[in-house]
Amino acid sequence: MVFTPSGKRGCFPVGTSLLQAARSLGVDIDSVCGGRGICGRCKVLVAVGDFAKHGIHSRSDHLSPISTPETRYARRSALPLGTRLSCHSELRGDVVIDVPPNSQMHSQVVRKDYQVRDLVIDPVVRLYYVEIAERAPEDLRGDAQLLLDALEEQWALADLRVSNHVLSGLQATLRAAGWKVTAAVRDGQSVVSVSGGLQTRMLGVAVDVGSTTVAAHLCDLATGEVMATAGVMNPQIRFGEDLMSRVSYAMLNEGGDREMSRAVRGAINDLVLQLVDQSGVDSKEILELVFVCNPIMHHLLLGLSPVELGQSPFSLATDCAVTISARELGLEWIEAARAYVLPCIAGHVGADAAGMLLAEAPWRDDRATLLVDVGTNAEIVLGNCHRLLAASSPTGPAFEGAQISGGQRATAGAIERVRIDRTTLEPRFKVVGQDHWSDVPRFAKGAEEPQVTGICGTGIIEAVAELFLAGVIDADGRIRASMKARSPRVVDDGRTCSYVLYDAGPTIHITQNDVRAIQLAKAALYAGVQLLMDRLGIEHVDRIRLAGAFGSNIDVKYAMVLGMIPDCALEDVSSAGNAAGTGAVMALLSREARTEIEMRARHVEKIELAIEPAFQEHFVAAMAFPHRSHPFAALARQVDLPARLDPSTSKERRGRRRGGRSNRRG
Amino acid sequence: MVFTPSGKRGCFPVGTSLLQAARSLGVDIDSVCGGRGICGRCKVLVAVGDFAKHGIHSRSDHLSPISTPETRYARRSALPLGTRLSCHSELRGDVVIDVPPNSQMHSQVVRKDYQVRDLVIDPVVRLYYVEIAERAPEDLRGDAQLLLDALEEQWALADLRVSNHVLSGLQATLRAAGWKVTAAVRDGQSVVSVSGGLQTRMLGVAVDVGSTTVAAHLCDLATGEVMATAGVMNPQIRFGEDLMSRVSYAMLNEGGDREMSRAVRGAINDLVLQLVDQSGVDSKEILELVFVCNPIMHHLLLGLSPVELGQSPFSLATDCAVTISARELGLEWIEAARAYVLPCIAGHVGADAAGMLLAEAPWRDDRATLLVDVGTNAEIVLGNCHRLLAASSPTGPAFEGAQISGGQRATAGAIERVRIDRTTLEPRFKVVGQDHWSDVPRFAKGAEEPQVTGICGTGIIEAVAELFLAGVIDADGRIRASMKARSPRVVDDGRTCSYVLYDAGPTIHITQNDVRAIQLAKAALYAGVQLLMDRLGIEHVDRIRLAGAFGSNIDVKYAMVLGMIPDCALEDVSSAGNAAGTGAVMALLSREARTEIEMRARHVEKIELAIEPAFQEHFVAAMAFPHRSHPFAALARQVDLPARLDPSTSKERRGRRRGGRSNRRG
Repeated sequence: MVFTPSGKRGCFPVGTSLLQAARSLGVDIDSVCGGRGICGRCKVLVAVGDFAKHGIHSRSDHLSPISTPETRYARRSALPLGTRLSCHSELRGDVVIDVPPNSQMHSQVVRKDYQVRDLVIDPVVRLYYVEIAERAPEDLRGDAQLLLDALEEQWALADLRVSNHVLSGLQATLRAAGWKVTAAVRDGQSVVSVSGGLQTRMLGVAVDVGSTTVAAHLCDLATGEVMATAGVMNPQIRFGEDLMSRVSYAMLNEGGDREMSRAVRGAINDLVLQLVDQSGVDSKEILELVFVCNPIMHHLLLGLSPVELGQSPFSLATDCAVTISARELGLEWIEAARAYVLPCIAGHVGADAAGMLLAEAPWRDDRATLLVDVGTNAEIVLGNCHRLLAASSPTGPAFEGAQISGGQRATAGAIERVRIDRTTLEPRFKVVGQDHWSDVPRFAKGAEEPQVTGICGTGIIEAVAELFLAGVIDADGRIRASMKARSPRVVDDGRTCSYVLYDAGPTIHITQNDVRAIQLAKAALYAGVQLLMDRLGIEHVDRIRLAGAFGSNIDVKYAMVLGMIPDCALEDVSSAGNAAGTGAVMALLSREARTEIEMRARHVEKIELAIEPAFQEHFVAAMAFPHRSHPFAALARQVDLPARLDPSTSKERRGRRRGGRSNRRG
Repeated sequence: MVFTPSGKRGCFPVGTSLLQAARSLGVDIDSVCGGRGICGRCKVLVAVGDFAKHGIHSRSDHLSPISTPETRYARRSALPLGTRLSCHSELRGDVVIDVPPNSQMHSQVVRKDYQVRDLVIDPVVRLYYVEIAERAPEDLRGDAQLLLDALEEQWALADLRVSNHVLSGLQATLRAAGWKVTAAVRDGQSVVSVSGGLQTRMLGVAVDVGSTTVAAHLCDLATGEVMATAGVMNPQIRFGEDLMSRVSYAMLNEGGDREMSRAVRGAINDLVLQLVDQSGVDSKEILELVFVCNPIMHHLLLGLSPVELGQSPFSLATDCAVTISARELGLEWIEAARAYVLPCIAGHVGADAAGMLLAEAPWRDDRATLLVDVGTNAEIVLGNCHRLLAASSPTGPAFEGAQISGGQRATAGAIERVRIDRTTLEPRFKVVGQDHWSDVPRFAKGAEEPQVTGICGTGIIEAVAELFLAGVIDADGRIRASMKARSPRVVDDGRTCSYVLYDAGPTIHITQNDVRAIQLAKAALYAGVQLLMDRLGIEHVDRIRLAGAFGSNIDVKYAMVLGMIPDCALEDVSSAGNAAGTGAVMALLSREARTEIEMRARHVEKIELAIEPAFQEHFVAAMAFPHRSHPFAALARQVDLPARLDPSTSKERRGRRRGGRSNRRG
């Protein structure tokens, strides 16, 4: 007989079950019920016909007839023609048996929406159905021992222990379920939940705790399917808009860190409740949580003071992955669940960066990949299959719209896209929550005009870049007073100049200070990347991936016009989406992913930019628009760059790139 | 050089420290500070003179002169002449070095008061002092990693993890203590506490949770010293005086078990607080708790419903040892501590019986030892180095003074000793809390007369036995109405007779029902023991140990007169004191003791008396006073037994004993 797709083959005595045959050949077939014909996880397809490749004539009557358990199963669930339960199908002759992905214990997932590539699903928790024989009167074993003995006899699981929280409901569950139960075993070590009858579904929640929002995905741990997604604002915002103000709150207020821990845990609690409501699942099925977050959220989530993260040398309490019970995080109602928090990499390169790293796996490639997640700080990872370097660039919150005169978060009402006519200097823009540009007639109509409330990070970047391209801002970042001759939108109050982007409601100016803030932020980011490039010994990165909400929304052309990121062919720059969240889902579904990221996080070379003299030099050099060494001929064409500002030719740029590449591992 | 008392010897280069020499020879010398000369745990004595046995001339100048750390240590603590710190004494020539017990890591304890014999102190927690070097600015390890790396470098402790609760205070502690801290490591696996500077003391609490009282001992985990002892009433008494009424409370009241859990945990909390106050220690030094208790207390302590223990087949939720954090037991303020609950043996043979078993270690002897702990049920263990059997006899609470007309617990005011004049039938008695018998003049004086409030278990046993010996009660347990002719204390109300023990205040009668209750209880106990003897194939036990409060207070002669326990030479019957508590202390001090009792508890043969037909037969046969086959000639002499009641001669008895002995392993 032959199993496909593995191609494993063997000869077995007539009467051997397909499941037995598979096990003895090492063919991966799942089973929760232990061969009782009730879980349906071991479904296989019988191929009929001549298989020249295998030299086998396969017939459906080369298997035993449909068994009673199969008929019973077919009555409850679907068992299409040609599909058999491998535990109840016995060999009678040569057959070719196909094991569909759903019946494989370690199935491969390719999920476009989460960009989870080549992930072998192997969650830390597994389900085992057992039937415990009636106890003889002289048998005085405790109920937990009966369960453990059954798991050992029926599943060869030795040396398990029953978690304390399971003990409290154990006796009632065993009796109510007639001693037929499904045990969830974590890490092959401890029974973390016992539910009555056959249970085949186990769920997990991946949570991305951001400073502004908290997002969570409910996943089926066996299939990898995302069943529901929900998000809420991080209620810690009331203690401070940005991370550093929250650290200050903890410094200045006795018990302030505990207050913030309670707040974020409360939000997570609500979020998980919401996922349960949305999907209609039983909360008892939730057996695992995974968290990604920046270091300050990490500390506050775990109930650790973030104070040390507010001052040099930005020491983490721990950089290891932390496993903690859901109960300890205040989620008493899903007490079977444990939470895995991804490792942090360094003081400002957190578990979110670890998630991004896991999702992007730059170690699989020998090309130099730059990963950037822009938040209050930009977390930067640069490397390839040989080396990985990480740092955090002190960009400040300007890219998030903070410290900008009309700035706000990227919520409804925020200007997120800006174009400025090179001649008239008239702007058009797009607002978050609206599909149309401001110059589309619908936009102008009073009733439908959206409430413009401010400008968010991507908006300010495009505005500054467009003003630079229109010649309103010079290479040093000065708003040219002379341009007021061209348009009344350029205003000079005698001391500084500004550009009026919007005035039909709240007036939104782009001030000289705004331009300076963007210059400082982009110089910090660029200088950080440059320093990692120096360390790696390369002059050019091959691939840039921008992660996070900001990274997903930014138009990379403008990022390059401003000199935020180093030179790279535009087609090699892309958004990584919510890479941290993707990493969280991966860690939820795969033990191997956890081992991998723990190892990688330990071995990443961590660079503290603040103590690197070269960082200052790079920073100063990166202040100008565009950065002096920045070739952007190609960009000029795409964003309608005035020819006189183009500092390089296409030919020169290519040459430089090639030089960079050959030096890359110097 | 030679180390005593081990006799280990070796040759080392001049300049080798004594500690290094000891380590390389495998001589057991303790050290907490890691050879820094500050903890004083490695003190040794330099023997001076010629040691013919070792062929060595030992001189104190064969060691390096007193070092600066030693002088500094001597200024803080005692360092008598001839005593050196082995970490700072270097070899210069031949020496004989004595390692005193206090300097041994695994010192032997012989504690009379706790009857802890031959216990090697090896607590589950150990202390390690480390000094963490200042972190270089480019070193971005988390604080937990710095600590773990220091423990690995300085103590070769690899693969440790830092417990989650330690993380929260870690950063502040490290900084406040200048990065010199003592870490407590549990089970060689996890750092459970970190305190500033050098800490050499670690404490543990052994708790004996009884149905009536909860007692706790605070112990020094390094020396085994009991520093303080405290006891409180079990507040669960308000839910029911005896165990079964508490189980009923849980059955009849929704959430009743949780209420009782809270109550007993609250009492334990108060008790530990009291121990801390009494001894003036820092609660942070408490790193370990151990609990012994009967199965129902066990379940209520752990927050498990005891309902299944109230009905056949009396199933335990678990019979394994349970480890749980002190926090989970409501002791948040000693969060570094974990609690170890001894294993239960069977449904009514609990962790208290396991404690007794551990303390008594009947497996060390080839004589058949009977261990009895009388409570609401009598827990019985019988065996020797070959086999161990355990059962619970349904004695009911009569031995505790319950279900007795004038009965009460053994508290102040309870009659606990009774003597009755064989001729006049006049009683004399002793009351709990009074040193004098009632016929001592002081007792009679009005002002000093104690308040007699009732009669406790030992009192009722002595009263019934004395009445039997005086001929007031016959062998069938009937109070003879004819005896009212001898004394007005024998009263006949026409239906039943009773004996007036006390009437100067509350009248305390010994009624016919009281005698019946004692008969039922003693028959149950005797029958249980007899059944275990049958199973073990012996006709005679060699040694009887009576444990628990009742076992400590009972006069064994009367127990034998009544036929509560089988025939045994009086000198081989003794009180085991609070054996369960002793077992708890042993489990607190020694990891090996835990391994031993877990293994023994698993392998004890558990007998369910209720389903044994022979139990009923033995029970019926054991109802009479004294038990028909009970030889008690020797007793008769000691308790002034009327000759006519003596059913055997001394000679016969010896013969029977010998016969019993030779059959014992049949």
